[in-house]
Amino acid sequence: MTPKIKSGLLALLLASPLAVVAQDSGRPRFSVDMSYPYDYSSITPYADEHAAIYKHIDDNLTAHLANLQRWLRQPSISAQDVGIDDMAQMLVDDFRAMGFKEAELVPTDGHPGVWGYYDAGAAKTLMVYMMYDVQPVNPDDWESPPFAAELVDHPTGKVLMARGATNQKGPERAFLNALESIIAVEGNLPVNLMITAEGEEELGSPHYPQIVDKYEDRLRTADGVIFPFNMQSPTGDLNLFLGVKGIAYWELEARGGSWGGPVTSEIHGSYKAALDSPVWRLVQALSLLTSPDGNTARVPGFYDGIRGPTEEEQSLIAASLMNNDRTRALKEAFAIERWIDDAGPEELAMELTYTPTLNIDGIYAGYTGEGVKTILPHVATAKMDSRLPVGIDPDEHMDKIRSYLDANGYSDIVMRRLSSYPAAQTSIQTPLVQAALGVSKKYAGTPAVNPRIAGVPLPFINSPSAWDCP
Amino acid sequence: MTPKIKSGLLALLLASPLAVVAQDSGRPRFSVDMSYPYDYSSITPYADEHAAIYKHIDDNLTAHLANLQRWLRQPSISAQDVGIDDMAQMLVDDFRAMGFKEAELVPTDGHPGVWGYYDAGAAKTLMVYMMYDVQPVNPDDWESPPFAAELVDHPTGKVLMARGATNQKGPERAFLNALESIIAVEGNLPVNLMITAEGEEELGSPHYPQIVDKYEDRLRTADGVIFPFNMQSPTGDLNLFLGVKGIAYWELEARGGSWGGPVTSEIHGSYKAALDSPVWRLVQALSLLTSPDGNTARVPGFYDGIRGPTEEEQSLIAASLMNNDRTRALKEAFAIERWIDDAGPEELAMELTYTPTLNIDGIYAGYTGEGVKTILPHVATAKMDSRLPVGIDPDEHMDKIRSYLDANGYSDIVMRRLSSYPAAQTSIQTPLVQAALGVSKKYAGTPAVNPRIAGVPLPFINSPSAWDCP
Repeated sequence: MTPKIKSGLLALLLASPLAVVAQDSGRPRFSVDMSYPYDYSSITPYADEHAAIYKHIDDNLTAHLANLQRWLRQPSISAQDVGIDDMAQMLVDDFRAMGFKEAELVPTDGHPGVWGYYDAGAAKTLMVYMMYDVQPVNPDDWESPPFAAELVDHPTGKVLMARGATNQKGPERAFLNALESIIAVEGNLPVNLMITAEGEEELGSPHYPQIVDKYEDRLRTADGVIFPFNMQSPTGDLNLFLGVKGIAYWELEARGGSWGGPVTSEIHGSYKAALDSPVWRLVQALSLLTSPDGNTARVPGFYDGIRGPTEEEQSLIAASLMNNDRTRALKEAFAIERWIDDAGPEELAMELTYTPTLNIDGIYAGYTGEGVKTILPHVATAKMDSRLPVGIDPDEHMDKIRSYLDANGYSDIVMRRLSSYPAAQTSIQTPLVQAALGVSKKYAGTPAVNPRIAGVPLPFINSPSAWDCP
Repeated sequence: MTPKIKSGLLALLLASPLAVVAQDSGRPRFSVDMSYPYDYSSITPYADEHAAIYKHIDDNLTAHLANLQRWLRQPSISAQDVGIDDMAQMLVDDFRAMGFKEAELVPTDGHPGVWGYYDAGAAKTLMVYMMYDVQPVNPDDWESPPFAAELVDHPTGKVLMARGATNQKGPERAFLNALESIIAVEGNLPVNLMITAEGEEELGSPHYPQIVDKYEDRLRTADGVIFPFNMQSPTGDLNLFLGVKGIAYWELEARGGSWGGPVTSEIHGSYKAALDSPVWRLVQALSLLTSPDGNTARVPGFYDGIRGPTEEEQSLIAASLMNNDRTRALKEAFAIERWIDDAGPEELAMELTYTPTLNIDGIYAGYTGEGVKTILPHVATAKMDSRLPVGIDPDEHMDKIRSYLDANGYSDIVMRRLSSYPAAQTSIQTPLVQAALGVSKKYAGTPAVNPRIAGVPLPFINSPSAWDCP
């Protein structure tokens, strides 16, 4: 069973793992062998019953709802430093109230982290990732005030509507509600917990490493990591991800200097007649980075080191494709009219999972308001990122872009490296994933297990053995 | 005496006026014959004396300074609609107090204009252009509060420091001060005046045509137009401009749609793996518009119709170049390290006066704040302008850019045309210009007369015969 590889013009195939060296003329394309989809009938449904715990949950619905509302009514907007300290303290207080042996704020160079340790005296230890911050709100966009957290009628039923209800305070506090009921009925949890929470996820987690570093030796003793996350879509589909793509995020800045252009401030636009433009310089430099359609990188070595699906990944994707048309669901969810090259479900899965991206998150220079202002700006900036599959080191990736700019005479363009982490992924064979699938199978159905999510900051489920991936 | 023309690769020379049809491979270059500089000794210095008027000015310095401060202390920020109505009314009141027969607000679709007519019963009528608005202020940038208009010590002496002190309320109210002294001493002015003032110059004069249209028949009877303007630089150099380049100003907007990309809102940046990017689309479309250095337009026909200097212009520029090194003065004024192709004074004068520009005034898309946010924006916008010499019609100019985008498959990119007017220019031979030069020669020295300023909204001096230029 050899995975097949499609490439635009020429592909170099290397054995185990498969690798494709990129050509300037096209990006590598991978395909899926549909002949051996993962057999979910092999998953053993979770066997134990927990009637007393479920009764406790039913009996305490009002208190559990109040917990959710308490978290959601506390604003925690990281970008504006609104309510951050109060929210972090709420986590500490809740952990203590639940009987966590350790619960403390973790100072960082940014917003504080939170550490919680529940000592169940158990053989197994689970690490739990949490984020307690939310995105800014534009109140005009909300049917119900974003921090009112009211129960409102909605086409999908009665829902708790608030900023953070889904991303991510809702699922996290729901997880704690479940733990409370387990502790109330059983007097203990079946596993020890190590919780690390950050208040800067929406800012790109710039100081989360400081939190992890402080407890690294202890975290490495955990048997697995989970991120409480809504895994069911409004249509009832279940999704579970075994890992995440890596990322590199940087800024490119063109600024007037000895090469030309205005140096210290903008100048009247009429001087363009005799003066170079940093905006044109940035535009022309950016244009060299991709094909004319903006979809294939032209940076030498950009696709080096990537691979197509392993046998396990292939079986998971084949099974997933049999049950799900994500192209259609995503098109509807995001009002997309056309994928690149009208990609079908297979191509979409391959691109999202295995192809490094080159994205412009933002670009800005000069006058950006209404109407007319005639200036020649002295600086122009692009914010960019690449989502990186297994096989690409983020630092080497940014080095290649830097070298390509230099080789084309753009050494004056500044590259500011803002954030990066490599791809990470675990196997469906790990006991923790098998346990999660067994529970899901019993209560909600079999999820579509995907090797890797294309881009969220942390894997849904990971394991210590995957920490050093790739 | 035939002006010489330099061109990158190939130039088509047409006789009288000289014209160059652009080639894709380079922009036209013009040069100056230095052998017949304009002879300023031919200018007759102004002969009359006005001792009584000058004495009146000296005796009323305090009142004149108070008038300046009254105008400068009244904020009139057009972009923020701060103080606009009060400033417009101040002009009306001042005109009335000076004995203008007509003084009234002129409603427009934007900020009001002001019309003033002083009937001196004279044979000649002068039109005066005024603007009463100023740019926004950042108070932190000011040594002295921008609307305090205090006299402060400065390396150049004691100065009146305020927003608008130079651009343009200061010179305009100084002009009215002089008129007041003339009227006080002589009982009348030697010419009739028609003043049109607008409050949106800093916004690109979007509604100034509505003001002109209302009085067009009467304005066409004027013998000339002036714009009260500081003509002397801190170094003592005098400059006078006979006209102005035209302008075309537009926006280009790339937005997701049936061609690809997110349609209604930004989407998570990880979807770049399978989704087109409107930002890349705009970048790649823009990159086709110029040479890699951003300095030569690649739009077919972009340079069609332009011409090098006429004999009169040549003589003016030759004389100007003999006295002035604007490359050095501008470099120092604006902290510029290098002109395009290290242009010398001659090349600078040629480019500023005779070459159409293609400038990006601003560009914006997606996230433009601090730090990391990973999004694939659904819309990207560039604000652009061209300064146009005599020979290029602004609408046809924008048509060519539109056609070039269409021909390259970018018909989905929206072009919004925001503002335009053609180049206009008068001759040094007109009586009004000769009179201005004679006055200047008597009191301050001979100015450098330039055919055209590269970019301000109205000519410094114009004449009715030039209104329909080119």
